[in-house]
Amino acid sequence: MASPIFVLNGPNLNRLGTREPEVYGRTSLADIERLCRETAEDIGFELEFRQTNFEGMLVDWIQEAGDLAQGMIINPAAYTHTSVAIRDAITTADIPTIEVHLTNIFARDAFRHHSFVSPVAYGVICGFGATGYRLAIEALSEVIRA
Amino acid sequence: MASPIFVLNGPNLNRLGTREPEVYGRTSLADIERLCRETAEDIGFELEFRQTNFEGMLVDWIQEAGDLAQGMIINPAAYTHTSVAIRDAITTADIPTIEVHLTNIFARDAFRHHSFVSPVAYGVICGFGATGYRLAIEALSEVIRA
Amino acid sequence: MASPIFVLNGPNLNRLGTREPEVYGRTSLADIERLCRETAEDIGFELEFRQTNFEGMLVDWIQEAGDLAQGMIINPAAYTHTSVAIRDAITTADIPTIEVHLTNIFARDAFRHHSFVSPVAYGVICGFGATGYRLAIEALSEVIRA
Amino acid sequence: MASPIFVLNGPNLNRLGTREPEVYGRTSLADIERLCRETAEDIGFELEFRQTNFEGMLVDWIQEAGDLAQGMIINPAAYTHTSVAIRDAITTADIPTIEVHLTNIFARDAFRHHSFVSPVAYGVICGFGATGYRLAIEALSEVIRA
Amino acid sequence: MASPIFVLNGPNLNRLGTREPEVYGRTSLADIERLCRETAEDIGFELEFRQTNFEGMLVDWIQEAGDLAQGMIINPAAYTHTSVAIRDAITTADIPTIEVHLTNIFARDAFRHHSFVSPVAYGVICGFGATGYRLAIEALSEVIRA
Amino acid sequence: MASPIFVLNGPNLNRLGTREPEVYGRTSLADIERLCRETAEDIGFELEFRQTNFEGMLVDWIQEAGDLAQGMIINPAAYTHTSVAIRDAITTADIPTIEVHLTNIFARDAFRHHSFVSPVAYGVICGFGATGYRLAIEALSEVIRA
Amino acid sequence: MASPIFVLNGPNLNRLGTREPEVYGRTSLADIERLCRETAEDIGFELEFRQTNFEGMLVDWIQEAGDLAQGMIINPAAYTHTSVAIRDAITTADIPTIEVHLTNIFARDAFRHHSFVSPVAYGVICGFGATGYRLAIEALSEVIRA
Amino acid sequence: MASPIFVLNGPNLNRLGTREPEVYGRTSLADIERLCRETAEDIGFELEFRQTNFEGMLVDWIQEAGDLAQGMIINPAAYTHTSVAIRDAITTADIPTIEVHLTNIFARDAFRHHSFVSPVAYGVICGFGATGYRLAIEALSEVIRA
Amino acid sequence: MASPIFVLNGPNLNRLGTREPEVYGRTSLADIERLCRETAEDIGFELEFRQTNFEGMLVDWIQEAGDLAQGMIINPAAYTHTSVAIRDAITTADIPTIEVHLTNIFARDAFRHHSFVSPVAYGVICGFGATGYRLAIEALSEVIRA
Amino acid sequence: MASPIFVLNGPNLNRLGTREPEVYGRTSLADIERLCRETAEDIGFELEFRQTNFEGMLVDWIQEAGDLAQGMIINPAAYTHTSVAIRDAITTADIPTIEVHLTNIFARDAFRHHSFVSPVAYGVICGFGATGYRLAIEALSEVIRA
Amino acid sequence: MASPIFVLNGPNLNRLGTREPEVYGRTSLADIERLCRETAEDIGFELEFRQTNFEGMLVDWIQEAGDLAQGMIINPAAYTHTSVAIRDAITTADIPTIEVHLTNIFARDAFRHHSFVSPVAYGVICGFGATGYRLAIEALSEVIRA
Amino acid sequence: MASPIFVLNGPNLNRLGTREPEVYGRTSLADIERLCRETAEDIGFELEFRQTNFEGMLVDWIQEAGDLAQGMIINPAAYTHTSVAIRDAITTADIPTIEVHLTNIFARDAFRHHSFVSPVAYGVICGFGATGYRLAIEALSEVIRA
Repeated sequence: MASPIFVLNGPNLNRLGTREPEVYGRTSLADIERLCRETAEDIGFELEFRQTNFEGMLVDWIQEAGDLAQGMIINPAAYTHTSVAIRDAITTADIPTIEVHLTNIFARDAFRHHSFVSPVAYGVICGFGATGYRLAIEALSEVIRA
Repeated sequence: MASPIFVLNGPNLNRLGTREPEVYGRTSLADIERLCRETAEDIGFELEFRQTNFEGMLVDWIQEAGDLAQGMIINPAAYTHTSVAIRDAITTADIPTIEVHLTNIFARDAFRHHSFVSPVAYGVICGFGATGYRLAIEALSEVIRA
Repeated sequence: MASPIFVLNGPNLNRLGTREPEVYGRTSLADIERLCRETAEDIGFELEFRQTNFEGMLVDWIQEAGDLAQGMIINPAAYTHTSVAIRDAITTADIPTIEVHLTNIFARDAFRHHSFVSPVAYGVICGFGATGYRLAIEALSEVIRA
Repeated sequence: MASPIFVLNGPNLNRLGTREPEVYGRTSLADIERLCRETAEDIGFELEFRQTNFEGMLVDWIQEAGDLAQGMIINPAAYTHTSVAIRDAITTADIPTIEVHLTNIFARDAFRHHSFVSPVAYGVICGFGATGYRLAIEALSEVIRA
Repeated sequence: MASPIFVLNGPNLNRLGTREPEVYGRTSLADIERLCRETAEDIGFELEFRQTNFEGMLVDWIQEAGDLAQGMIINPAAYTHTSVAIRDAITTADIPTIEVHLTNIFARDAFRHHSFVSPVAYGVICGFGATGYRLAIEALSEVIRA
Repeated sequence: MASPIFVLNGPNLNRLGTREPEVYGRTSLADIERLCRETAEDIGFELEFRQTNFEGMLVDWIQEAGDLAQGMIINPAAYTHTSVAIRDAITTADIPTIEVHLTNIFARDAFRHHSFVSPVAYGVICGFGATGYRLAIEALSEVIRA
Repeated sequence: MASPIFVLNGPNLNRLGTREPEVYGRTSLADIERLCRETAEDIGFELEFRQTNFEGMLVDWIQEAGDLAQGMIINPAAYTHTSVAIRDAITTADIPTIEVHLTNIFARDAFRHHSFVSPVAYGVICGFGATGYRLAIEALSEVIRA
Repeated sequence: MASPIFVLNGPNLNRLGTREPEVYGRTSLADIERLCRETAEDIGFELEFRQTNFEGMLVDWIQEAGDLAQGMIINPAAYTHTSVAIRDAITTADIPTIEVHLTNIFARDAFRHHSFVSPVAYGVICGFGATGYRLAIEALSEVIRA
Repeated sequence: MASPIFVLNGPNLNRLGTREPEVYGRTSLADIERLCRETAEDIGFELEFRQTNFEGMLVDWIQEAGDLAQGMIINPAAYTHTSVAIRDAITTADIPTIEVHLTNIFARDAFRHHSFVSPVAYGVICGFGATGYRLAIEALSEVIRA
Repeated sequence: MASPIFVLNGPNLNRLGTREPEVYGRTSLADIERLCRETAEDIGFELEFRQTNFEGMLVDWIQEAGDLAQGMIINPAAYTHTSVAIRDAITTADIPTIEVHLTNIFARDAFRHHSFVSPVAYGVICGFGATGYRLAIEALSEVIRA
Repeated sequence: MASPIFVLNGPNLNRLGTREPEVYGRTSLADIERLCRETAEDIGFELEFRQTNFEGMLVDWIQEAGDLAQGMIINPAAYTHTSVAIRDAITTADIPTIEVHLTNIFARDAFRHHSFVSPVAYGVICGFGATGYRLAIEALSEVIRA
Repeated sequence: MASPIFVLNGPNLNRLGTREPEVYGRTSLADIERLCRETAEDIGFELEFRQTNFEGMLVDWIQEAGDLAQGMIINPAAYTHTSVAIRDAITTADIPTIEVHLTNIFARDAFRHHSFVSPVAYGVICGFGATGYRLAIEALSEVIRA
């Protein structure tokens, strides 16, 4: 059977929907997981969906994805702007990786405009909320099948 | 009948496919237009697809989109990094606007990492080649119907 | 008969009044033209009033003003912050030139604080909406008659 | 009777006309005061015209203007570039305030291009010598009567 | 019964008192905890006092505080200068949060002058050693009761 | 009898409470003085409380404090960000000095994030309004008695 | 017959000789065209010589040169410092391209020291007035024949 | 018996040898551990060799080394460039610490040129692959015995 | 009789000798005045020697010097680094002006390396304590007599 | 007889042709000297051609050129980017000086984009290999005969 | 017989041991030479050991090393931070080159943190005093024999 | 007999008086030497006066001064702004050193405002032409006799 795709979520995303809905909307991470599962199922991907607040755990999981997955979608949240370790793990994993952000990070604080991850990602999608995850799975599917 | 969506393309995109295929791939702008038309048709959008090398023309067209269209997809190409006029036109147009780039601009020259357009776009998609346009039309459809 | 003065307007100013009135007010460019014509008439100036979204067209017109006009008022709008070509054209035109902005550009985005035009302008007036044009014509009149 | 407008002048402006005429012209501060009085009289404003070399005195006077005046014109001279205290006083005064400079500060030393005052002023006029004060009073009149 | 306040301590604070006493003094973290407990008791707060070297654990605890506590005092130590994740967690927690530092961080290395946390904290207290925690609990008490 | 402590206040603080209450609250400087007197009395300090809009006057008073006082609390307001003279006066005075700000200066304009005073202060307290003065007197008391 | 070489001139160069002769000399663009034609004829090149004030037109022409010419000489004038579109067009054209400037741009304003074009040009010649064009044609001839 | 030396390895080093061999070579972390053990044995050191992807775990271990070890060798990998916590832990540990990097970090991305660790390390060795660890143990031995 | 020379001293210099002798030495400002008087007498200059903590007062005195003196020596102390007003006053005074500092400002904090005054001074002398004043008077004497 | 022209070459140019031919080509410095001699002879110049690795020697030779030569061509190689002494020597020599580089320095490392020499050179030629020297001699001939 | 290795030392290293022993220790350059000779002898390398205060001489010697040596160790001392010529010479020499510093340059002045040499060196060793040379010879031996 | 003082002069100073007299005056280096000899004789110093265009030679001479001289005066000319080697040599020499510049370097190009030498000099004198050397010898005499 085909290897899965990983969808990895960074710090504070476990609080989606219940907090700061004026910025991040009312969709919860469980809603996003459900949307991802439906999309993946339609396309025929198995899905591994995780969240952690630990940078080191993200590094562990990205390495695991490198061993087991066909591709990876990552929303590194706050670690986007500060983590060289995640960047290096993605380079090491050497599978197609798509960076997703719920909000348009370029319309927020200046320190959110720089991403350590983007230069090593295959592509970047930001600003579309939960929809961004669905688009990323579709895009990943095209990349993998190309 | 519903108003159309505009897909506007900036400088040098008319040369896609025949030049520098190692960077931009072999897909021509005509291929992208075809893909956009198919996607738009599936979703039920009328499509206006244009390209120009003139910044001023892009400003004219964005204003026109503001009058006539439900939403807009724009690949400002090189003007992404230098045009405040395009940014202001998008703000003025006041319709959902998605910024698309064929390549992952964050993996290229440093001066390509900054976009004057991103802060006023609804969302940004980059790195997926022609597929990015299809994803943008899907995303735009969700934004418009939301 | 005396040569005219030129009032040149840059990108997106053709949309004044109908869009983003919370920033730029409800006065249209036609209203501004009318105000300029009245002021010029009072002072005894013939007036040439134009708008374009093209940087190159502004350069053409500034050169034309250099040949035909006694003085020039320019609101380069977004090109204020990005155009060396307009700056060079003003230097070349070698007639008194006043830079006008409807809004106080120093109270807006940081990238709007720098003007390529100001160092080669005779003077700068910003923040007074349409009234700024009237003040500029009066000032130009003093400069020319000095 | 209506409250007055204040015209406040910062350091070294008491030396206008007698020193460095090649930069600042031959008009003295007394000449400018006379011009301001005439303009104010025409419009129907009472005028309070002052100069000091002390930053703290300017802060005192701006506070006084906030209590007594309908509007204020300020040429903070050298303090333009270094005084947060004057900026804060203007914010506190909460009356329409116009920043005036005799010379085009953008055509001079780089450290004169930044003004702490501009972001909290209603508008800015620079480069027109004494005429700038007259234009500022006219502009202030429109702002107050709007 | 009233919800508690959290006092969260970041990396290396578990070594206070035994190491580098010339910089951080001889007070241990246990001493600080005791001082906090006494102060909280006087004011009538229940206290949750914790320390960790893991950024992700701090994020977990701040989220927990957001669910359970009336307010929070945080000394993010080294993560002050590098963690966007902690900043975002504090924003998400949406309870009054006071940033405390034992030393005057502005009198140390330049990279310690910037805090990602300060802009989202209610207030900041630094330089008073253990006393700073007591002042913070008093301040928090006023904020909560206001 | 023991020497007093000085509480020195910088520009525009004389306008507290009556202006911009949405930023600075409704507490007046007289209210703050009263709070300081009560706190000082409880602790057994004599108090000297002053305000000026002049940088030079603050320097004079800091020197005077250096001669007469046991310690000093200073809210340099706008001069925080621009005055090396005040910084040098504090160094010269050589008594424990605590910097206080009513607002959280790190949550305001970027130019308010830098303080010339902080590196030479004993400690810094900001964001707690009038309460910050009370905390500062308590902290000063501990420092002096240590 | 051999394909031609293009000599493309940017904004304000149509005013050479009649304006600002103290900076740019008395040679007109027609003089430069004549010099270029003579030089090209000597070497056996057909010559296409054009000038425009529009950035978009330069992009069009560079693309045309990429289709039709053996090599290209470009004086982008003010667009040198601001145009990524011209840079991208040159990269796309993929023919030997020499950047020429009449003046020594490194001895002028700081913003003229940076060229977006130089990194993608074959070589750069500046400071020799009209002679620079002749040298560029000679150099281009060597490059093409190498 | 003498206390051991610690060799601590940061994120992604567990993947050495199997991934990106063109950058990091084919030596695995197990190979490096073996080399370190041999070298340590020759010199008469007991060795504690560890790897983790968690910044907080590195801080824990460095503190542990401060308690138990004679000296420490650390390759903080990606955390080199982002971790103030590790820097502070090393300062706190107060034992001789040598920073090692497999690659020459100065020949890689600009953001890898800055190390938060170097200023508090005894010395730095980079660019020699596994050999760098052996050199570091030798150097540490000299430092300890000095 | 010949006009005098002015020796003007800025903030905190009135505290010389009694405070921070390890930085500024034990010489008091009265000692420096005595040394200046002796030197001036030897050379045949009348001397006006003053100190103030107010920037505005320095501006007043510099203007006065411009009216009455042959030359001026100024130690602007902390205002060296922050005062454009003093710089402008010196320019306006238009008499030979020598900047003196007791300490070598280039061996102190980075923000003390920049002087607003130096570019408009005739020359600069720093690092020699009181002797620097004597050298400055000698130098001024040569400049005046040249 | 007419005075000669100097062609001065900086560090490492003595190794041309034998080392790094993929960057600098296979032409040796002797080849370049031969090309220069032929060109100079055609034009009627006597030629002095030298190379040194010492910055001080270049300064000596530039001074000598100032005494003896009609003009100078200089390829300062690595000293281009670091030597103020060479810049000053060229200013002092006061003869027409042309800066030449074999490679296009703007297409190489960022630190090679800045030249201390360019602002004081008559003109700059770079990117044409040995041909650049020939072009420079021709250009110098025109400058001298103008 | 095998070619030698070069050990080249830059400015002021000839004064080691007799001056500033608190920074550089009491080891003289002769001691270091002796240590290098012993190490080289053990490994079987012939050694060429030199010191100069001239940048140009270092360039000469590096070129000579490129012709004659198997590898090179260089301590460029102060030229580390300012010499592009030495960097280019090392690139040209094209033999394994190790950069050594006696002190930990990252724990000293900020301008010593940047090395022009490091990006073209094989590896870097700093902070170990004379021992660093021995480690470098061992490392070089491994590199050469690899 | 007492050891001498050294007066060392850097690049291009051998050309004083004959070249660029509008910047540096008509005094030759021989005139300066004569002035220095007279001043030194008056004070009772033996004088060693030298000039070189080589940075390495200056380093040699500064070391020599460290061995033989009581004090040193240095005008490093262009090397002021680029030489760490000279700075290190002065630190190593460990005798009182005064930096002199003929012109006011702060009134010239921005790159001349920074001196690597000033932070390690005893004091700095600039702007007084040849007189500066005389003042420096007097100052040095006071420093040595203190």
